[in-house]
Amino acid sequence: MEEKLKQLKEKLAVVADLQAAAALLGWDQQTYMPPGGAEDRGHALGTLARLAHEHFTADEIGSLLGDLEPYAASLDADSDEACLIRVTRHAFDKETKVPAEKVAEFAFVTTVAQGAWEEAREKSDFSIFQPHLEKIVALRREYADYFKPYDHVYDPLLDDFERGMKTADVKAIFEQLRPLQVELLQAISERPQVDDRFLHLAYPEKDQWDFGVDVVTHFGYDWKRGRQDHSVHPFTQTVHLGDVRITTRFDPERPASMLFSTMHEAGHAMYEQGVAPRLARSPLAGGTSLAVHESQSRMWENLVGRSRAFWTFFYPKFQKVFASQVGNVSMEAFYKGINKVEPSFIRVEADEATYNLHVMLRLELEIELMEGRLAVKDLPEAWNARMRDYLGLTPPNDSLGVLQDVHWSGGMIGYFPTYALGNLISVQLWEKINQDIPDLESQIAAGRFDGLLGWLRQNVHSHGAKFGPQELVQRVTGSKIDPMPYVRYLKTKYGDIYGL
Amino acid sequence: MEEKLKQLKEKLAVVADLQAAAALLGWDQQTYMPPGGAEDRGHALGTLARLAHEHFTADEIGSLLGDLEPYAASLDADSDEACLIRVTRHAFDKETKVPAEKVAEFAFVTTVAQGAWEEAREKSDFSIFQPHLEKIVALRREYADYFKPYDHVYDPLLDDFERGMKTADVKAIFEQLRPLQVELLQAISERPQVDDRFLHLAYPEKDQWDFGVDVVTHFGYDWKRGRQDHSVHPFTQTVHLGDVRITTRFDPERPASMLFSTMHEAGHAMYEQGVAPRLARSPLAGGTSLAVHESQSRMWENLVGRSRAFWTFFYPKFQKVFASQVGNVSMEAFYKGINKVEPSFIRVEADEATYNLHVMLRLELEIELMEGRLAVKDLPEAWNARMRDYLGLTPPNDSLGVLQDVHWSGGMIGYFPTYALGNLISVQLWEKINQDIPDLESQIAAGRFDGLLGWLRQNVHSHGAKFGPQELVQRVTGSKIDPMPYVRYLKTKYGDIYGL
Repeated sequence: MEEKLKQLKEKLAVVADLQAAAALLGWDQQTYMPPGGAEDRGHALGTLARLAHEHFTADEIGSLLGDLEPYAASLDADSDEACLIRVTRHAFDKETKVPAEKVAEFAFVTTVAQGAWEEAREKSDFSIFQPHLEKIVALRREYADYFKPYDHVYDPLLDDFERGMKTADVKAIFEQLRPLQVELLQAISERPQVDDRFLHLAYPEKDQWDFGVDVVTHFGYDWKRGRQDHSVHPFTQTVHLGDVRITTRFDPERPASMLFSTMHEAGHAMYEQGVAPRLARSPLAGGTSLAVHESQSRMWENLVGRSRAFWTFFYPKFQKVFASQVGNVSMEAFYKGINKVEPSFIRVEADEATYNLHVMLRLELEIELMEGRLAVKDLPEAWNARMRDYLGLTPPNDSLGVLQDVHWSGGMIGYFPTYALGNLISVQLWEKINQDIPDLESQIAAGRFDGLLGWLRQNVHSHGAKFGPQELVQRVTGSKIDPMPYVRYLKTKYGDIYGL
Repeated sequence: MEEKLKQLKEKLAVVADLQAAAALLGWDQQTYMPPGGAEDRGHALGTLARLAHEHFTADEIGSLLGDLEPYAASLDADSDEACLIRVTRHAFDKETKVPAEKVAEFAFVTTVAQGAWEEAREKSDFSIFQPHLEKIVALRREYADYFKPYDHVYDPLLDDFERGMKTADVKAIFEQLRPLQVELLQAISERPQVDDRFLHLAYPEKDQWDFGVDVVTHFGYDWKRGRQDHSVHPFTQTVHLGDVRITTRFDPERPASMLFSTMHEAGHAMYEQGVAPRLARSPLAGGTSLAVHESQSRMWENLVGRSRAFWTFFYPKFQKVFASQVGNVSMEAFYKGINKVEPSFIRVEADEATYNLHVMLRLELEIELMEGRLAVKDLPEAWNARMRDYLGLTPPNDSLGVLQDVHWSGGMIGYFPTYALGNLISVQLWEKINQDIPDLESQIAAGRFDGLLGWLRQNVHSHGAKFGPQELVQRVTGSKIDPMPYVRYLKTKYGDIYGL
């Protein structure tokens, strides 16, 4: 059996190597690639993806898994080996159940759809995108059917991003959360607004860059195993566990953009940097799900980066560097400014108190589309109705509404809820960390983050993808994903800021 | 047959995609990769190389070639298709004749040998490297034997770098060349030395970089299909035909280093950028041999970059940027300074008049080693004796002698002659270009390089690897590789500079 396990690991390492190559090609495409490389880069990425898929779904992998599963049952269920076999089997079944020609058809349809979506968004004309989205929804329904029997047609889609998570769980969580967030937002909107004009002045690029670097260096982002570059949209890319890169972007008059996105991406990256090196070049070598990943990025960005404790340490530095911009802004005013709540049309610009509402709206629409209860042609109207109900806003056009996000055009249905789940998990973990590290706040106020990072490494990061998101959260906090800690957090934080 | 040709092209495109990925991983390794990525990067590169080899040597490729060869015979021998089948067959036979375990053994021995060589060079102790080189020579002899019958045991090695070239040809060329270069060097050494102290002052990095960029932009290096970065050793890397990157290095007190290496690498890169796009993702998509590649880099570096015409245009700019360094150096003094001839121990620092002597020495020793007429243990002595004969110098130790180059430790026997052949080809082409563009010199003196680049594109670059080096030189100049144009060039140039 040891020999078969060794064989399986070697075959999976080849897949990991192909994925590492694709990761670097993708990173380069968004950072340094000259425009002339675009076409052949597309070919190369296509070939790498196809070969990785072929190697991963090879018959030998299937029979090795079959041989190893009885053996895995005899192992400690938490051991690397048992987890490896379990996680590989799950992914193997998912990748082999869908015929190759369906995968190719989906890739083709979504490639064309992305062009149509770009045009539709530019012209703010949903009708251009509508027939493409109809095809995508139909194909996603077909996709789900390969995984019958399911409890809900949305389950197989959700599972692609959150292994083992069920639609019923997500719905229950969000149905509990939504009215509480709407109610809080209503209460905030009745209070005087905070002033954040100082966040809309010109801040020099190099100073923004250096300040962000200083912050994430304090956090513990390991520059020997990473680097930061510029890109149009900030992202984190793991090439190898020892090479986890982040990017950021510069907006001269929105200093908060680079600063908080740097913290956010460093949060993702520190998760991957913290995976146990012994899991390298295997399906366990990385974060376990998008929601858990988002819990890490949002924790560093929001629970740390938008906290009073954090700025107790960093604001004097910030004031020194940006004296002409915030020299006469008190720390309290600054703190309130970076935590201003304001309903807006665009998800990616939303604050902590409104963000989840954007996501819940999308999730509800996705589920209705998949269930066939909502027709694609009625989507803009349904979108706008929910925007009014949840955020009190009516998008003036579809570019600021239903067409704003790229995800659906790429076929990514099931992805959105992970953003909100990440927020919830971040606070669940945060409550637990504060129990385990009672002086966490004063550590942060002293610029010390090693206690926090050490806790995350031990309890979350080091496990890589061994445990699914619900299982991991349960192991660490003692309960499954739960919205109430997040609600408590929002109420406390904004109750204080807005004097509720 | 069209269908089979299409199949062949598709299979070769997959190999090209894997090689493109490896090229980017290699480039990144030397430019931006954080140190933590090293180990897994090695694994990924190993996997890509293995998969590229497996895909290229697959039985299907062999049988497609077998089916297509009669068809190719019916085509115009110069057509893309006929060349593709011919070139692929040549490479296929070379890659399939050597058993995989021999390839792996060689990879292992040379990996170990590189470590030993580093230590040997550091300690200037040849005995550390000797047993490794003995193994390498034995393995290279075994390698050659897989290609029996051959005219000379060195032929299969040379052919790895210069397709179709024979040892007898190279020997004949160099035996004609060597005494003439030795004689010229002797004559120069009897004349007063030129003054180049102004090339050993501090030149600011940014100004060096910008000047180099300005020069290669004038040359016609296409920044939309390339970029320049820093690395320890300058190199050119083709990721795709539309993405050909160069690197350079900064030495504050040797401005000539960055400037001429930028021109040199741009020469390599413009060759690849000039390959006809229709040859993309095939074995024809790139320069045809190392010697022809070197002819391009050396042409832009030396025939253009160290010429009076070039500096007629650029020296006023140079003087303006580096006023404190060369403000009172006349153009004539500058021209002589950058063309100073001085025998030295190290090949990579050698000037135009001595460079080939370094190479010929190595070639002769390689041939004797392969023929078994020279034992590895006697190599240092043989090296030093030839250094005395050709350059009038005795290396004070082996680090400045037989241990200076990395090539042998990597198993690259057959590589060195390509450097000198490149110099010879560059001048052969140059004579032809000057016939075809009679006012070339005045174009260059006016900062116009489009005539030159256009000629190279049409006659050399666009063909990619369709024709072997000898065949290409013959097609373009009407004769095979010939040392006499180079001798004439050196005599004229240095006769003028040193008043011979």
